[in-house]
Amino acid sequence: MTAVKELQEHFQTLHHIGHAAQYLSWDEAVIMPAGGGEARAKSLATLHKISHEMVTAPKVGELLESAKQEATSAWDQANLRVIERRWTRATALPVDLVVASSLASSRCEQSWRRNRRANNWEEVKPLLKEVLNLTKQKAEILGEKLALSPYDALLDGYEAELKRAYIDPIFKELSEFLPNFVNEVIANQRPHVSLKGEYPADRQMDLAKKLMLPLGFNFGRGRVDTSDHPFTCGDLWDTRITTRFGDDDFLESMYAVLHETGHALYQQGLPEDRYDQPVGGSLGMMIHESQSLFMEQQVCRSEGYLSYVLPILTESLGVDATDEKWSVTNFIRNVHYVEKGYIRVEADECTYPLHVILRYQLENSLFDDSLSIDDLPNAWNELMDRFFGLDTRGDFANGVMQDVHWYAGLFGYFPCYTLGALTAAQLYQAYTTTNSDAEAQFEAGNFESVLSWLRDNIHSKAQLTSGFDRIVEITGKPLTTAAFVAHVNQRYQT
Amino acid sequence: MTAVKELQEHFQTLHHIGHAAQYLSWDEAVIMPAGGGEARAKSLATLHKISHEMVTAPKVGELLESAKQEATSAWDQANLRVIERRWTRATALPVDLVVASSLASSRCEQSWRRNRRANNWEEVKPLLKEVLNLTKQKAEILGEKLALSPYDALLDGYEAELKRAYIDPIFKELSEFLPNFVNEVIANQRPHVSLKGEYPADRQMDLAKKLMLPLGFNFGRGRVDTSDHPFTCGDLWDTRITTRFGDDDFLESMYAVLHETGHALYQQGLPEDRYDQPVGGSLGMMIHESQSLFMEQQVCRSEGYLSYVLPILTESLGVDATDEKWSVTNFIRNVHYVEKGYIRVEADECTYPLHVILRYQLENSLFDDSLSIDDLPNAWNELMDRFFGLDTRGDFANGVMQDVHWYAGLFGYFPCYTLGALTAAQLYQAYTTTNSDAEAQFEAGNFESVLSWLRDNIHSKAQLTSGFDRIVEITGKPLTTAAFVAHVNQRYQT
Repeated sequence: MTAVKELQEHFQTLHHIGHAAQYLSWDEAVIMPAGGGEARAKSLATLHKISHEMVTAPKVGELLESAKQEATSAWDQANLRVIERRWTRATALPVDLVVASSLASSRCEQSWRRNRRANNWEEVKPLLKEVLNLTKQKAEILGEKLALSPYDALLDGYEAELKRAYIDPIFKELSEFLPNFVNEVIANQRPHVSLKGEYPADRQMDLAKKLMLPLGFNFGRGRVDTSDHPFTCGDLWDTRITTRFGDDDFLESMYAVLHETGHALYQQGLPEDRYDQPVGGSLGMMIHESQSLFMEQQVCRSEGYLSYVLPILTESLGVDATDEKWSVTNFIRNVHYVEKGYIRVEADECTYPLHVILRYQLENSLFDDSLSIDDLPNAWNELMDRFFGLDTRGDFANGVMQDVHWYAGLFGYFPCYTLGALTAAQLYQAYTTTNSDAEAQFEAGNFESVLSWLRDNIHSKAQLTSGFDRIVEITGKPLTTAAFVAHVNQRYQT
Repeated sequence: MTAVKELQEHFQTLHHIGHAAQYLSWDEAVIMPAGGGEARAKSLATLHKISHEMVTAPKVGELLESAKQEATSAWDQANLRVIERRWTRATALPVDLVVASSLASSRCEQSWRRNRRANNWEEVKPLLKEVLNLTKQKAEILGEKLALSPYDALLDGYEAELKRAYIDPIFKELSEFLPNFVNEVIANQRPHVSLKGEYPADRQMDLAKKLMLPLGFNFGRGRVDTSDHPFTCGDLWDTRITTRFGDDDFLESMYAVLHETGHALYQQGLPEDRYDQPVGGSLGMMIHESQSLFMEQQVCRSEGYLSYVLPILTESLGVDATDEKWSVTNFIRNVHYVEKGYIRVEADECTYPLHVILRYQLENSLFDDSLSIDDLPNAWNELMDRFFGLDTRGDFANGVMQDVHWYAGLFGYFPCYTLGALTAAQLYQAYTTTNSDAEAQFEAGNFESVLSWLRDNIHSKAQLTSGFDRIVEITGKPLTTAAFVAHVNQRYQT
């Protein structure tokens, strides 16, 4: 057997184990009874341990060397690149540190779940210190191995090649542009009648399916369910999204569904013949978020789409469509409503990047030791005041404890959200230069051209190139803020 | 580390992998979209391969020898017995034969699913021949290793120590007693008004939960869902049962739920502190069926239970409880209705054993080479005519193709159903000798004493002894037909 083939079979087996872990995690989040938690955690830990042992097996390093001489096709070469990256990162870390870090994160995340509602920062604080301490150790070791700064080594784990030197000027621009922009938008915002109210969950679920189908979601290869927090998981054969109901705001669930559908369409569009190889998977979180935000923000908040979807929506929800509050104008004003709020996940697309920049700045200060966990709430409050004029003193649940990421050890993840939004805008700009009638197509319920454009340019390419190379290849230039700024100006200032 | 401890850790890891496979199979049967089938099959095959490699690892044999010198507690000794049994059976078979047999069974079962509705015996026949051929090879090798006849080696795989020499006289008695008994019951049966009709699925599901809860099913550690065929799976922390709706007969789904609840109560009652060791699992299929049938037949078809459940049932189903057809008398007559039918899974408790004996006789003839697959439909028809006076010529779907077992390679499984029914009757007899007011308790909705009796005598004992030893320990005698015959006489002839 050739080294290429042998590596492929090894990573095929790894894929099967990853498949198992993925659907077991889905089950845990969506339907598992509470009593199953501990046994499930142990089963998942065993699968992760087996996977780690298989990735770091010495034969992988040896096979990689031989395989590089053999591989001729671009896909095979890319597969080796992705495998080597995974192998390098996995072998860099001592197992003891991986286990200690995983346990500390689990404990801290569980403590966060218990204490967030109680607004109890003091109890979770020492656990967060331990998580940060272990994450710093990992970042140091990875950085040394990869010749990156520790924080860059973390960023690189979420999107290959992502660096602080790249993010800094982009976030600087946004933090200079957005605060005044948001103030202007809010000052000029026209009044709307709120659409909040009680909408039965089964009607909202019916609506979710009626939204997903025309966008191209394949129900023969996927599902939609409910969970505490919306998410997408699964491979291209069985892609699952979740949403949640129960709030008085059907728009929140509707846009969660549209967001996750964007993620799901990416998964469902990955190349079938490489589904069990590392190269056949999706790119990092920046690109994954670009796909969800492309659908959620660019396509599904466009006026064309909103005109199309309104009759479907009023019928599914069983409301009186002749009431003035269900007019297209009022509907658009609800969807395009901009507001300064405490919570990132509820933010509109104009204020959202500021929430991310706040977290990014704090992460950087934590990693260059200019900020301690003890001072984190004060630093948080200072930035919330600067960006939004909001006071979060003593309000940890709506402040420093609102997101799970840090408590779960995911430092370096946040920038991907906003870079994904910028990518979505730049991709959409490229798409509309060759499809100038895009909105008219959406208004007619036609999403074939936009889906096939994404399929050709992103989905079917999987990890053939890096995410950054892909953006240049599609749009002809590196990622900048230009398209996003043009987009929000066009949507919110005209 | 002691050998005992090392073996325990090895089988703990195996348990975690088995956990993964189990819930992935549940997912496949209950909620997986069709497109996920092939990727799921490959993932499961990888988990099974890893498990097989771990069970048959040479170190298991070595550790077993040392551990036998060390183990002092009855539980540790029993654990070694169960591990050795598993190791012996797994190492006996060449991997190539295991794989070939697994593939042949998968293909034959899939073909059966496609062809059963079309009544197409000819297409599935060659695949069944291959399955039988490979199963015979496995049975030969296992029999030689275990010093058993080939068919006994298969029986032993479903319930430890089960042998043809044990089954033959029992089934002979039943086949002599039941045909005339059934004729008499039918001749003396009093008329009833059928309760068939349309009952909405959500009302039936509501009823299911209201039946499960008082029997002791713990919803903090379990679920109920729907699937094509009712089944139970999961460990004691997360036990899941399924049922199906959609027929015009709510009683079918109701008794499927009660049956599966019996299985589930066994799982939920297994000892918590040994849940990840082989000895902590349930006994074989004879004992497992005894637990489902104890609930379904002995407890939940008793007149006391039926009086208790009727008001709950009429309220859940939303029917007019004052209508004469919802009287206790008419309800009991519906539940106790005896009928000669084609389909095993729809059979009442009087005719059911004859369906099993038919299959057992045919299996024996297939394994002693006195019957070929080509002649199987004729032989089936002959026995159906003898036992029930029913003609199945040309009707394969309601005849030889009605059950999945043979097509999935499960020869030797069928006897456990009827032995389970006999066991249930003998256990119930033992229970009522010390709880003479059992039916009065059920009528009052009190199931605590019956559950704690099962917990003490069966559930919490897991595999501490064999199933046969357990029966003797509880009832003071080996399993016979006496209690079952007394039970059906009492219920159907008085």
